[in-house]
Amino acid sequence: MPANTDALSAYLERINHEATRELYQKDFLLTWQHSDAVLHSILETAAALRQMRDAGWGTRVFDNGLAVSLFRDNSTRTRFSFASAANLLGLAIQDLDETRSQIAHGETVRETANMISFLAEVIGIRDDIYLGAGHEYMREVGESLEEGYREGVLPQRTTVVNLQCDRDHPTQSLADLAHLREHFGGLEQLRGKKLAMSWAYSPSYGKPMSVPQGIIALLTRFGMEVTLAHPPGYNLIPEIEEIAGAGAAASGGSFRRSESMAEAFEDADIVYPKSWAPYAVMQKRTELLAAKDTAGLAELEQECLENNRRYLEWECNDELMRTTKGGTALYMHCLPADISGVSCSQGEVSAEVFERSRLATYREAGWKPYIIAALILLSRVEKPRVALERLAAQRYSRVVGSD
Amino acid sequence: MPANTDALSAYLERINHEATRELYQKDFLLTWQHSDAVLHSILETAAALRQMRDAGWGTRVFDNGLAVSLFRDNSTRTRFSFASAANLLGLAIQDLDETRSQIAHGETVRETANMISFLAEVIGIRDDIYLGAGHEYMREVGESLEEGYREGVLPQRTTVVNLQCDRDHPTQSLADLAHLREHFGGLEQLRGKKLAMSWAYSPSYGKPMSVPQGIIALLTRFGMEVTLAHPPGYNLIPEIEEIAGAGAAASGGSFRRSESMAEAFEDADIVYPKSWAPYAVMQKRTELLAAKDTAGLAELEQECLENNRRYLEWECNDELMRTTKGGTALYMHCLPADISGVSCSQGEVSAEVFERSRLATYREAGWKPYIIAALILLSRVEKPRVALERLAAQRYSRVVGSD
Amino acid sequence: MPANTDALSAYLERINHEATRELYQKDFLLTWQHSDAVLHSILETAAALRQMRDAGWGTRVFDNGLAVSLFRDNSTRTRFSFASAANLLGLAIQDLDETRSQIAHGETVRETANMISFLAEVIGIRDDIYLGAGHEYMREVGESLEEGYREGVLPQRTTVVNLQCDRDHPTQSLADLAHLREHFGGLEQLRGKKLAMSWAYSPSYGKPMSVPQGIIALLTRFGMEVTLAHPPGYNLIPEIEEIAGAGAAASGGSFRRSESMAEAFEDADIVYPKSWAPYAVMQKRTELLAAKDTAGLAELEQECLENNRRYLEWECNDELMRTTKGGTALYMHCLPADISGVSCSQGEVSAEVFERSRLATYREAGWKPYIIAALILLSRVEKPRVALERLAAQRYSRVVGSD
Repeated sequence: MPANTDALSAYLERINHEATRELYQKDFLLTWQHSDAVLHSILETAAALRQMRDAGWGTRVFDNGLAVSLFRDNSTRTRFSFASAANLLGLAIQDLDETRSQIAHGETVRETANMISFLAEVIGIRDDIYLGAGHEYMREVGESLEEGYREGVLPQRTTVVNLQCDRDHPTQSLADLAHLREHFGGLEQLRGKKLAMSWAYSPSYGKPMSVPQGIIALLTRFGMEVTLAHPPGYNLIPEIEEIAGAGAAASGGSFRRSESMAEAFEDADIVYPKSWAPYAVMQKRTELLAAKDTAGLAELEQECLENNRRYLEWECNDELMRTTKGGTALYMHCLPADISGVSCSQGEVSAEVFERSRLATYREAGWKPYIIAALILLSRVEKPRVALERLAAQRYSRVVGSD
Repeated sequence: MPANTDALSAYLERINHEATRELYQKDFLLTWQHSDAVLHSILETAAALRQMRDAGWGTRVFDNGLAVSLFRDNSTRTRFSFASAANLLGLAIQDLDETRSQIAHGETVRETANMISFLAEVIGIRDDIYLGAGHEYMREVGESLEEGYREGVLPQRTTVVNLQCDRDHPTQSLADLAHLREHFGGLEQLRGKKLAMSWAYSPSYGKPMSVPQGIIALLTRFGMEVTLAHPPGYNLIPEIEEIAGAGAAASGGSFRRSESMAEAFEDADIVYPKSWAPYAVMQKRTELLAAKDTAGLAELEQECLENNRRYLEWECNDELMRTTKGGTALYMHCLPADISGVSCSQGEVSAEVFERSRLATYREAGWKPYIIAALILLSRVEKPRVALERLAAQRYSRVVGSD
Repeated sequence: MPANTDALSAYLERINHEATRELYQKDFLLTWQHSDAVLHSILETAAALRQMRDAGWGTRVFDNGLAVSLFRDNSTRTRFSFASAANLLGLAIQDLDETRSQIAHGETVRETANMISFLAEVIGIRDDIYLGAGHEYMREVGESLEEGYREGVLPQRTTVVNLQCDRDHPTQSLADLAHLREHFGGLEQLRGKKLAMSWAYSPSYGKPMSVPQGIIALLTRFGMEVTLAHPPGYNLIPEIEEIAGAGAAASGGSFRRSESMAEAFEDADIVYPKSWAPYAVMQKRTELLAAKDTAGLAELEQECLENNRRYLEWECNDELMRTTKGGTALYMHCLPADISGVSCSQGEVSAEVFERSRLATYREAGWKPYIIAALILLSRVEKPRVALERLAAQRYSRVVGSD
């Protein structure tokens, strides 16, 4: 596809030097720790990289360097997104293969963080199993890298990118935001749009809360009218619900809670139906895991699944979709979805609704590599816009002989 | 070693633009789905890449991009060949680490195929355990990628390269063909050459049929006189034996069956003695695996090993080799061979015969990275010959300071 | 950090053409197999690469090529050092994932060595579990590669770099030497310096002897006064103790043994307190492992841990450190250390001593990627100094837009 140079120039012009300086040499752990200007620059950078890649241009910002990945939970999608992002910029992936059972602390973390980072630009971490632990671990790694750089151990401030923790899933929520921007034709167009972030039934248990938390915390900042719907007891980390409320207040949007999927869907422009485990359950589960109480864990799971089954009707289906704005709300999902009659007998979404939106959810996911690449670039390169402008001026072909 | 520019020019000139267009954006699953012209161009491309690499020139066609590997069976050789091919062209390897027991279908395949391919050029798949499943799975992945590209999910038509399925092992058979071409001094020289593709005894059970199937289906197309020899009951997938017959008829060669290793070896120019499990056993095994019938599987294994032991004398040894053309037939094997007195007490080949041909079998294997690289290049680059000509004109050194 | 071009020029000038020719196309297995001139050139090459990297210059010597890693024992540090070194030079890492229990020999080794090396520059091997086996295995791989290259199987003499065997840990000892050179301001400054390589208590069992062996064999060659201290019975491989003695005699240094940590520490400029298993235990353990004598192994472990506990007082603490030269000896460790009250209740070093030296040990480790890169470069590039001078003349930026 030929380069849309006008669009590319516009993206590049909107990358804000002041904002990118804010992120340079910093970890990206939670969207709510960063200014609107930074978030805007991340979106513009992601869009610019995508334009250049789609146009067939090379995008190697780094001649060499490692991107370390540390997954404390299974992952295919995020693993490939991180690998793709690293490769797009010229970095090589090196996996840190920890035994998952053992969560290291203290000297081990400090030491390991430095030992793997002598020539590393970035460490991508997924750690979403233990409530209260994932984010703390990433902070600990970040502080160790900060010390290592300050004390001359590391030649660069290797940065941490959160690939999902117990609190936030910023590469997902930012990819979702990029998808919304593309779908509605601009961030300004999101103002006043109604989004239903709704719990949905799933025959599984213990799904992390980081996606709904990330969505409500991020999208309320763009003037959207966000409803968080879930059955009684399925609430999220209270502090993050507060952050969503504050974000809505500041942006002129709104944030409200509902105990009815139907109510949330009514007149919604966007629906995001997804299962998660309740906060109280995640707390209890974390305690039981720490105590290695196998019997207690099995009991908790039984209890939870039974409780879930009381809300079988929380399914995104045609009937509900008809109640949305014009009957055509945008369906979103972080994938994989639990599809009724496809991946389970009864799940988050009916087969008809999912099939209609299937390719759109793939496209939604397609933003993730570019969002991660933007986070790497902004946290590791002092003048990311200059770097991209340099590449855009060179316009060298990614594939020899294809120009 | 200095570049043989005359040879290189000849290889490049014989890469056929029309033929390569046929493979562009297409999967390479079975050799018999492709024209002779495509196969010739693959060989020329492989030879050209090898010339350039041996001459110390850089061969990076891609500035960045992923090559995904998915191995549903253990592999060292093919894994390294694929990794080498990807690296030769400038791609980075990313493994998809599926649990081997679980063969995903339907939405999971469609979704995963797209999720891993946003920035991937090629997916190399090895899936040879389940009869009837490996090829089907690759087709399913290919169709998912086709849809993803057509619908704008993927910026490129990521292609699939078959690294061994239940039906064919095209990177092996094409590497074998390249080896034969080199050994005999040209494809034309293969006309009329007698090849014995023979079953041989092994103390193991359940070896795939894809190598003998790939060999008889491919080599009959080059005017060779191919004999497939095996004990009663050890036949291959009938449809593929028919393909071999048709190929022989069209090329002016011949294809016949024999139940005697000695008969097949007589006056042979080339011998390829290798163990495999009979078609009927593989069918039964696939059913038992699907039914998770452990007792049945153990029983089947016992039965098979006993049956194998009836054919202990199917060993490629000096006595048999003396009956070949001039007593000096070319010995071929895909490796590792079961060598009598070395890797087992009694196996496919005697220690004397193997040792004499050992380095030749290594050289045979040495073509595989270049064959795979050629398949990637032809399926992913619209004008592969132009790309190689461009690189050949640049003649940049692969190693700084070595020119 | 801006380039220190004077320092860089000095490093490059001291890379000795004659010496590097000695290592070209050769394996690097044991430091004592190589001349002082080679070791000096390794240090200069490592320092030059570090200068260039720290200055933000690109260091890709290879346009493509594989670096194979084979770890028969768990490793994070060395794995990342090898990956970093490979990446620094432009090579891609490919892991060879052997099952650790099975030590292959004979044809399997010859064949595998060739099969993985068609496009590989280097194979890094860690194999330190079996006494008498690790070094032998590396030699076998090296000989197989030599044959493969000589016989035209491989287009290059892929080389082996020892990442730790039963005898030596050369990338560790050379990194330690680079650290000492930096700390004391030159190799000449090491002359006459007193180093205590001392056993220390650890609540674990079976730690390899390769680090103390590597240290005494290498550092005695630089005119240092090396004391090897350990409790009765904890001696190293006798042959290597002899090598240390000969090295000291040749260099004008000294090598002596002691059965007192306190004696070794007295007036020492450098202390290297580290646990290891006694030679006799490692021998017995190797026999038991070979015999798969689980009960015997458990008994040996019990016996050993009990024996260790007789030497609880072999801990590097403030009291001992006060007896060193000026009370400020340089503390060294290959990491991770067993720190009393931190990683175990009682260990090799007190928390106070370790914390004071913690960042210094990180910096010590920071040399390892550059030492490994130097070994790859010198064993694989005919004129490594010319290659580096070429890169230094180009001074291209490692990161686009950062110049």
